[in-house]
Amino acid sequence: MGFPFEIKAQSGKARAGILKTTRGDIRTPAFMPVGTAATVKAMTTGQVKATGADIILANTYHLMLRPGGERLKRLGGVHSFMNWDKPILTDSGGFQVWSLSGLRKLTEQGVEFASHIDGSRHMLTPEYCIELQADLIGSDIAMQLDECTKFGSSETEAKSSMELSLRWANRCKAAFGARENQALFGIVQGSTFANLREQSAKALLDIGFDGYAIGGLAVGEGHEVMCQVLDYTVPHLPSQSPRYLMGVGKPIDIIESVARGVDMFDCVLPTRAGRHGQAWTWDGPINIRNARFLEDLSPLDASIDCEASSVYSKAYLNHLFKCNEILGQTLLSWHNIAFFQSLMAKIRDAIENQYFEELLTDLRGRWKNK
Amino acid sequence: MGFPFEIKAQSGKARAGILKTTRGDIRTPAFMPVGTAATVKAMTTGQVKATGADIILANTYHLMLRPGGERLKRLGGVHSFMNWDKPILTDSGGFQVWSLSGLRKLTEQGVEFASHIDGSRHMLTPEYCIELQADLIGSDIAMQLDECTKFGSSETEAKSSMELSLRWANRCKAAFGARENQALFGIVQGSTFANLREQSAKALLDIGFDGYAIGGLAVGEGHEVMCQVLDYTVPHLPSQSPRYLMGVGKPIDIIESVARGVDMFDCVLPTRAGRHGQAWTWDGPINIRNARFLEDLSPLDASIDCEASSVYSKAYLNHLFKCNEILGQTLLSWHNIAFFQSLMAKIRDAIENQYFEELLTDLRGRWKNK
Repeated sequence: MGFPFEIKAQSGKARAGILKTTRGDIRTPAFMPVGTAATVKAMTTGQVKATGADIILANTYHLMLRPGGERLKRLGGVHSFMNWDKPILTDSGGFQVWSLSGLRKLTEQGVEFASHIDGSRHMLTPEYCIELQADLIGSDIAMQLDECTKFGSSETEAKSSMELSLRWANRCKAAFGARENQALFGIVQGSTFANLREQSAKALLDIGFDGYAIGGLAVGEGHEVMCQVLDYTVPHLPSQSPRYLMGVGKPIDIIESVARGVDMFDCVLPTRAGRHGQAWTWDGPINIRNARFLEDLSPLDASIDCEASSVYSKAYLNHLFKCNEILGQTLLSWHNIAFFQSLMAKIRDAIENQYFEELLTDLRGRWKNK
Repeated sequence: MGFPFEIKAQSGKARAGILKTTRGDIRTPAFMPVGTAATVKAMTTGQVKATGADIILANTYHLMLRPGGERLKRLGGVHSFMNWDKPILTDSGGFQVWSLSGLRKLTEQGVEFASHIDGSRHMLTPEYCIELQADLIGSDIAMQLDECTKFGSSETEAKSSMELSLRWANRCKAAFGARENQALFGIVQGSTFANLREQSAKALLDIGFDGYAIGGLAVGEGHEVMCQVLDYTVPHLPSQSPRYLMGVGKPIDIIESVARGVDMFDCVLPTRAGRHGQAWTWDGPINIRNARFLEDLSPLDASIDCEASSVYSKAYLNHLFKCNEILGQTLLSWHNIAFFQSLMAKIRDAIENQYFEELLTDLRGRWKNK
């Protein structure tokens, strides 16, 4: 069934809309903070909510290992477990299997892998991946199992990988069936080959999903290539469905992708950078440990309605990081998430009020190569 | 001048009162969370405030090294620096010099020491200790510089040490002078010798302080000896002044000390234990990593009006600690501070409503040897 998706305004290919889920509206373009192990790292859900985030992402791979799918089901599902009552999107687990597990074996059936925590063996099939997400974890939006094609693959390799993902897409769709109050997104693969991206998109459309993700990007291809792939991929996606660019990205990546018609994003950047002392600003990222902030009484951004952004001075944040205080990691994660949400709000406002081109020009100037 | 201290009710030697500072009332008996480096570890000040804490403690030793006294003065003092507008008590720095610095030299003049961070040399005299606290850090309650006599010292050593602390008390008082809106507390020393404790208390009274602390406890003497020292020390302290037992302690230590007439406490226990997975409950401490909490859907304490205590399940907290998630450290620190404040609120209510003896009996039964 999916969720109603209403496009309220457009500016060129950029769209502003609302994806109306049972657990609340998602204003698009949307940035989803990453809550890997059922926690957006170093933040309470109240803090996340206060930034204006309408939806977060949780990682199926991490949750299937800890606390485990069956246990999470017995505990009432991920929303009550982590005290987040808004929508949650889960990835399929396939990407983390590939990046974290030392031992894994890909077959037509699925992916067999060894846990990076204790070496225990697990099997992730398209069917189990859907059961995990939709029934055990209980996410609002589930992703098909796919193979994330390695950047730099040959066309033959990319085609073979993309076709496997399509067969898994079919199996995921069959396993998902018709559900009320939950949605399933397909994932376009095809690496950097326009013809493969087109084939993938068209085949996914034939199967029919509630939304379409673009996978296999943010894997080292760089900003220019990412933009090119979007240029020839997005036009093959239906305009009435939400489009989600997985794992992206930096602010400059986000605005360029919105300009190419993308509606949803997720990335660990704001929280990971925050834990390491990097704060995002309208002039690019700053390293709060820098000595120039030792006596800087200004906040990170007085215009953002967030305690972490507007109350604490850079001097205090510098102090917290120099002392390795946990509160520093919390405040910078919180500020960065607030900054990203503030960026998305500005993007939506710009699309709705017809100044998106000006915003794009301004932000390109500020964030080029940042 | 000190602050008005109004005793509202008594039950035996236990007292309930209000210390009225310029930055707000401190309800006594009071527990002060420790904010070592101008942060109550892993918590925002909003979270600390929400637990009902009326005052926190900050460490002069840590602040004089980072960000530094002069710098902190330029930054506007500790309250605005850390975003805490309620009262702050600072210790004198002497205890941390002794416990953290590798190299230190005690003379009549003061303590010379090498920073545990970078080995830089510093001198802490009674006069500088007061300048640091009252002028540079800007705390509401300053403590005299003292020598914390080692547990197990001979009477001769303890006497000599206590007398040095008295001479420093005189110098601190002179350096402090007459101040509006700030208070200075003296510290009773004398180790485990009743005659020395009496001499120390009487000499401090002759100098005249705004409050009286009992130092040299919580240094390995154990619960019974601590109670004995209080038994023969507190009676020499003036009933109209606040009494502060430094560095104490466990809940059982706190209630036994309140029963002996103590009004104020500080201890790293709730935050340190919280960061290590220990949560305090009315039945004693529990280790949240224990497997019996894997599927325990109950919160730590539904009766405490604190998100960390009443919203999250033990199963979720167990999960966070198993995954080494920062949020686990935040939530358990927060719960423990809330638990300690809840204990103090119950103690005050019991004194005011004449059931303190019953509460004492109940809690002794629950917490003996815990």
